[in-house]
Amino acid sequence: MSGRELIVFGTASQVPTRHRNHNGYLLRWDDEGFLFDPGEGTQRQMLLAGVSPTAVTRMCITHLHGDHCLGVPGIIQRLSLDRVVRPVQAYYPASGREYFARLRHASVFHDVTDVREMPVDAEGAIAVGPFGTLEARRLDHPVDAVGYRVVEPDGDRFVPELLTQFGVAGPEVGELQRAGSIRRGTQTVRLSDVTRSRRGQRFAFVMDTRLCDGVYALADGADLLVIEATFLDSDADLAARYGHLTARQAAQVATECGVRRLVLTHFSQRYPDMRGHHDEARAVFDGDLVLAEDLARVKMPPRR
Amino acid sequence: MSGRELIVFGTASQVPTRHRNHNGYLLRWDDEGFLFDPGEGTQRQMLLAGVSPTAVTRMCITHLHGDHCLGVPGIIQRLSLDRVVRPVQAYYPASGREYFARLRHASVFHDVTDVREMPVDAEGAIAVGPFGTLEARRLDHPVDAVGYRVVEPDGDRFVPELLTQFGVAGPEVGELQRAGSIRRGTQTVRLSDVTRSRRGQRFAFVMDTRLCDGVYALADGADLLVIEATFLDSDADLAARYGHLTARQAAQVATECGVRRLVLTHFSQRYPDMRGHHDEARAVFDGDLVLAEDLARVKMPPRR
Repeated sequence: MSGRELIVFGTASQVPTRHRNHNGYLLRWDDEGFLFDPGEGTQRQMLLAGVSPTAVTRMCITHLHGDHCLGVPGIIQRLSLDRVVRPVQAYYPASGREYFARLRHASVFHDVTDVREMPVDAEGAIAVGPFGTLEARRLDHPVDAVGYRVVEPDGDRFVPELLTQFGVAGPEVGELQRAGSIRRGTQTVRLSDVTRSRRGQRFAFVMDTRLCDGVYALADGADLLVIEATFLDSDADLAARYGHLTARQAAQVATECGVRRLVLTHFSQRYPDMRGHHDEARAVFDGDLVLAEDLARVKMPPRR
Repeated sequence: MSGRELIVFGTASQVPTRHRNHNGYLLRWDDEGFLFDPGEGTQRQMLLAGVSPTAVTRMCITHLHGDHCLGVPGIIQRLSLDRVVRPVQAYYPASGREYFARLRHASVFHDVTDVREMPVDAEGAIAVGPFGTLEARRLDHPVDAVGYRVVEPDGDRFVPELLTQFGVAGPEVGELQRAGSIRRGTQTVRLSDVTRSRRGQRFAFVMDTRLCDGVYALADGADLLVIEATFLDSDADLAARYGHLTARQAAQVATECGVRRLVLTHFSQRYPDMRGHHDEARAVFDGDLVLAEDLARVKMPPRR
C-alpha cells in the first residue's frame, strides 16, 4: 500500500501561468494509475515529474472543458507510441461522447492501445477491481460534470500479536485465511480471533462545481481529497456565477466530511500567490492542508 | 520591417523532452503573426516566450500528425477567451479536413473567434495581402504534408541621396509616389530617377519530409529557412523510412538554394545534444546557422 500517492502535473484553471500548467493528476494506487483531468501539456508534465505515461491504467475526466481534457489526445497517442496494448478505461460524462470521440482521434497516429470508453450516465459505482470501487457523482457546473472517488473496501488484517498468542504461524496463516478456522490441538482458532477490522482507504477528486450533494458524497470520509478552489471568498460572486468553489467552501467541506489530507488546486490566475487560499482554508480546516504545486507528490495518509 | 522575427516555442519531434516542447513557431511579419505547426503545449510556451496568442493572425499546419497540430485547440480556445473577433485563417492539407474539424471543436468552449479554414489542395499562392504572398508546396511524408513560404514582392525604395540630388523633399515625395513623376522647374523627375529596386524578403518553413521538389521550391532564395533535421546522416535509413531529413540534407538544401539564415529544428530525442547536427550542417553550409532552442528568437537577416 506504500505505493499510493498523488502526482500533480498541473494546478491552473482556465489559463496556464508561468508556474502552473493546466490540470492533470495521477493517482498511483497499487497496480492502478488513475489519470484525472489531463489538460493540455500533461504528456510533457509527466516527463518533468518523472512518470511514464505507461503508468496510466484509467482516465477519469470530470467534464469536457479544455483545461480538463485537452491533454487526452497526447496521452492516448503516447500510450500507442509506447506500445501499451492492455486496455485503458476512459470515464467521462456521457453527454460528452462526441467530444471524447474527437479527442480520441484528434490527429493521425498509429492506434495501438485499447482505449475502452466508459461514459458515465449514472451515479454510484462505475468500476470494481482489486483496487476497490471507482464511484462517480454528479457535480454542479455549467456543463455536465462528475466527480470521482476510489474506495477500498473495509477489511480484516492479521494482528501479529494475536497470531503469536494463538500460536498460528507460517503456512497456517494462509490456511486459516482460506478455511476461516483451523484446529490448534483441542482448540479452534477462528479468523476473528487473530484479525481486527481495517478501514479501507478513500481518495476523492472534486473539480469544477458549486457546492452540491455530490461534493459531500464524494468527500465523505476521504483520507485524501483533491478539490478545486478556483476563487477566494472575496470573489464568491464569481465562483457562484461560473460554477466554482472558494477556498473557504472547499475547506469547510473537508471539515464537515472528516477529510484527513486536503489538496486545494485549480487556482485562478488572478491570484498572484496562494496566501489567501491558505488562510481561508486554515481558518476552517484542522487537518493536513496542501496548496497544490505543479510536479508535487502527495502521499496517501497512513492508515488509521 | 524591424518587426520581422521568428519566435520558437518548441523544437522536439514526436516525443517532447525535458528541454524541448513539441513544435511551434510564430513568424512576426509586420502586422501578421503566422503560427506554424502548434504542437501540444504551444499555448503555455507562448506565455513563457512572452508572446500573446492574440498576435496570431494565421495558422499554417504542415500535416496532421499530433506533434504538428495538437496545440490547435488550445490556441483557438484561447483566442476566443481573449475575445479576438477578427478572422484568423487556418491552412492545412485538404485531406486533413476531418481532423481539423475535431481540433477546431475538441472540447466545450464559448466560440468567439472567426476561424476561417483554408484547406490547401493545390500548390502555389494560397493568400495574398499587404505582407506579400503565402505559398504552399507539397512535401513527401507518409501522410499528406505541405510546406509554406512567405514572399514579399520585389519593389522599389526611395534612395535619400537621389532625392537630395533631384531636389525632392517633404510632401513632394508622396506626390511623386502617387503620380509617378513631378515637375521640378523645367525638369521632370520620375520615380525611377530616385528609387532603386529592392528584393523582397522570403521566409520558408519546411517540416516533415524526405528530399523532394517542394523542399527546393520553398527554400529557393530564402532569407530565413526553418527546416526539420530530425536525424543525423548516420541514421539516414531511419530518416528515409519515416519520411524525414538529416541535418546534412537540410543544410545541403540551404546551400543549393542560397539560404542566408538556416534554422534546424524538430530534433529526435535520440540525440542527447546537437553537436552532431551542428557539425553536419556546418560542413556543407556557410551562412548563419541556428540550432533551434525552445523560446529562442531569430531575426530575419537585414535586407540585402
